[in-house]
Amino acid sequence: MSNIAATIITIGDELLIGQTIDTNSAWIAKRLNELGIDVLRRVAVGDTRAAIVTALDEEKERADIILITGGLGPTSDDITKPLLCEYFGGKLKVDEIVLAHIKNLFSRLNRPIIERNLKQAEVPDNCKVLSNRMGTAPGMWFEKDGKIFISMPGVPYEMVAIMEDEVLPRLSNEFISDALLHSTVVTAGEGESYIAERLMGFESELPPHIKLAYLPDSSIVKLRLTGRGKNKLLLAEQLESLQIKLIEILGRIVVANEDIPMENVLGNALIERGNTIGIAESCTGGYIGHSVTQVVGASAYFMGSIVSYSNEMKMNVLGVNKATLDEFGAVSEQTAIEMAKGALNVLNVDYALATTGVLGPGGATERVNVGTVWMAVTDRDNNIRTREYKFRYDRLKNKEMAAKMGMLMLWKFITGRI
Amino acid sequence: MSNIAATIITIGDELLIGQTIDTNSAWIAKRLNELGIDVLRRVAVGDTRAAIVTALDEEKERADIILITGGLGPTSDDITKPLLCEYFGGKLKVDEIVLAHIKNLFSRLNRPIIERNLKQAEVPDNCKVLSNRMGTAPGMWFEKDGKIFISMPGVPYEMVAIMEDEVLPRLSNEFISDALLHSTVVTAGEGESYIAERLMGFESELPPHIKLAYLPDSSIVKLRLTGRGKNKLLLAEQLESLQIKLIEILGRIVVANEDIPMENVLGNALIERGNTIGIAESCTGGYIGHSVTQVVGASAYFMGSIVSYSNEMKMNVLGVNKATLDEFGAVSEQTAIEMAKGALNVLNVDYALATTGVLGPGGATERVNVGTVWMAVTDRDNNIRTREYKFRYDRLKNKEMAAKMGMLMLWKFITGRI
Repeated sequence: MSNIAATIITIGDELLIGQTIDTNSAWIAKRLNELGIDVLRRVAVGDTRAAIVTALDEEKERADIILITGGLGPTSDDITKPLLCEYFGGKLKVDEIVLAHIKNLFSRLNRPIIERNLKQAEVPDNCKVLSNRMGTAPGMWFEKDGKIFISMPGVPYEMVAIMEDEVLPRLSNEFISDALLHSTVVTAGEGESYIAERLMGFESELPPHIKLAYLPDSSIVKLRLTGRGKNKLLLAEQLESLQIKLIEILGRIVVANEDIPMENVLGNALIERGNTIGIAESCTGGYIGHSVTQVVGASAYFMGSIVSYSNEMKMNVLGVNKATLDEFGAVSEQTAIEMAKGALNVLNVDYALATTGVLGPGGATERVNVGTVWMAVTDRDNNIRTREYKFRYDRLKNKEMAAKMGMLMLWKFITGRI
Repeated sequence: MSNIAATIITIGDELLIGQTIDTNSAWIAKRLNELGIDVLRRVAVGDTRAAIVTALDEEKERADIILITGGLGPTSDDITKPLLCEYFGGKLKVDEIVLAHIKNLFSRLNRPIIERNLKQAEVPDNCKVLSNRMGTAPGMWFEKDGKIFISMPGVPYEMVAIMEDEVLPRLSNEFISDALLHSTVVTAGEGESYIAERLMGFESELPPHIKLAYLPDSSIVKLRLTGRGKNKLLLAEQLESLQIKLIEILGRIVVANEDIPMENVLGNALIERGNTIGIAESCTGGYIGHSVTQVVGASAYFMGSIVSYSNEMKMNVLGVNKATLDEFGAVSEQTAIEMAKGALNVLNVDYALATTGVLGPGGATERVNVGTVWMAVTDRDNNIRTREYKFRYDRLKNKEMAAKMGMLMLWKFITGRI
């Protein structure tokens, strides 16, 4: 491979004791990829001198660019800056621009500035300083033996700001490399093995510079085609025609021809049709409303959600009958139907979705096992579809699954698939 | 350090192109830590033979235990199993127990079994097979040159099941090591630098076997004491008295004396007092309801949330006055107050919280900038507190921040702090 190769080193004890989930690496990898830079490895190490130096020594042997996040905060558990300064043979000195920026930040927040913050204006004299509009710790760009080392704070939005303002523009100027393109098809309702079976012929005919990967997440399976080549236009055409073939083979299980989440699939269908939706949630606790409103512009079609966690609220706000709750229970097909009808009326929308279930770990009754979720969808013509799901994961995963399946069900209903 | 050391290797191209965020490593690290096993490094590599072999070769030189996740699925982009088999000099053969388990899984799902799934029953003849009750791919436990290698699928709930059923019990039997204990204090309302200033004396007096780390996440800062020692009881006592000292020094900014999220802080206060809450959400779209219901047993105090994304819903369900919306706008102190009062009435609760704002990226008006969120809390005695927040991150981060600050505000109100 003649491509430019990068390694991401993340620094912080919190990563090694499981207190923090590393979201930075995925973000960085995605953006480097868009420039045609391959990420070879990601390495997480603790806040110790030896661990950091070893990682730097090793990764610079494999990669052209070493991106480092973490270890730049104002407190004493952060040792990265002096270490990097020494590693590249520099000296710490105050950078006037950084100093002015820190003072400005503090005066805007109306807070007194303290010595510890002023120290953040000290940077190695042998690096290019990368400005951090979101915080006090600047990024640093070192070059040594033809390799580039970029150090950034670990706070996600600060890292993102430095990458977007400083790092990505510089890298894209510096490197001309092979294009790397991805094309994704999202499917729902069939397992990875079945899909693989149907795609055996397709896969065996792929040219060597294009790969197919399966990314299963419960009943959603994403299929990703990745191509690499000198001619970006030609590669894009090849990927497009392969994607069309893929969609033909997979037929009705295809949910989207781009890498978008279920809430965007649903949103696109609603925008296209000019329809509105409302939701009545019990066990999902607001997660479906949250998911739907992650789409920018959701207010065009999403009127709201009634999170009716108690039976009183199911009756008083949604108009579910007491007799229904008494006879069938809160987690039942009948209650789900009345909740959906209630949401349609109260919110005055074209389509409504309702969920009611038990997500666990406790809450099982004689009638209902943990993981059972009833869903109902309805429209202004009083068409109704219902479905019972059995989820078997933990509380959060069950909630996410229920939200995803609920949005999928609503999308299928709106687009005439069920 | 005489402690048992582990490395986590995660395999999968999806990790290097940013399509997947690695949550497995944090989970594994946390659980190993509880056993007193240190995680030295985490390494992510792609689905290529060379990358995987290099990682195995290198990490076995530093660690006693190498945990590997990913690369065991039924599709052809997964190459880990044959590679591990060869790496340890074994041969693939069908394991009858795994085969019976796969057949059983498929018959329960009422699906025909295909060749590709049967192949998952093939395991190296030189490993201990680790049963996977959540899926078809078993885990594998190899031993070589005094080192332990554990391979598991990358699907999070399958990995968790194998760890809990098989790996953790075995590891805790096998190793007796130093105790490693953590003690956390959660604070809100003061920045990392200020806290560090106040803790300078405290930090300088810490014994060498106890470390203090700062884990800032916007206006929540967690302080984590980590101690290591032979005598677990003594260490626990030391940490406890240091934690008490820490809480004394920090005073009113302390929110919790254990590592729990804001929703649990709020839930604990409500359970203790026997009070109920309800929410009216606009910009947060259901995220506060979702957060509150992540606490097991939240139904004891959480009645529900009205996600009133449209003005119609604010008026029709919550009873916000049209005149208020017209005069002050949906994002205003006055609207937040009427939403909170509406939620209190409609949901018949002791306390209500309301949020209304613009999370971005679009949606700014002449009156309101992106990132502005108004919040109001109220109670049955008609006490009211309001606050305007200015968030400056992306849509999801702004939502999370608004949810966290909203729950914090409600907790302060309920506990008489504001």
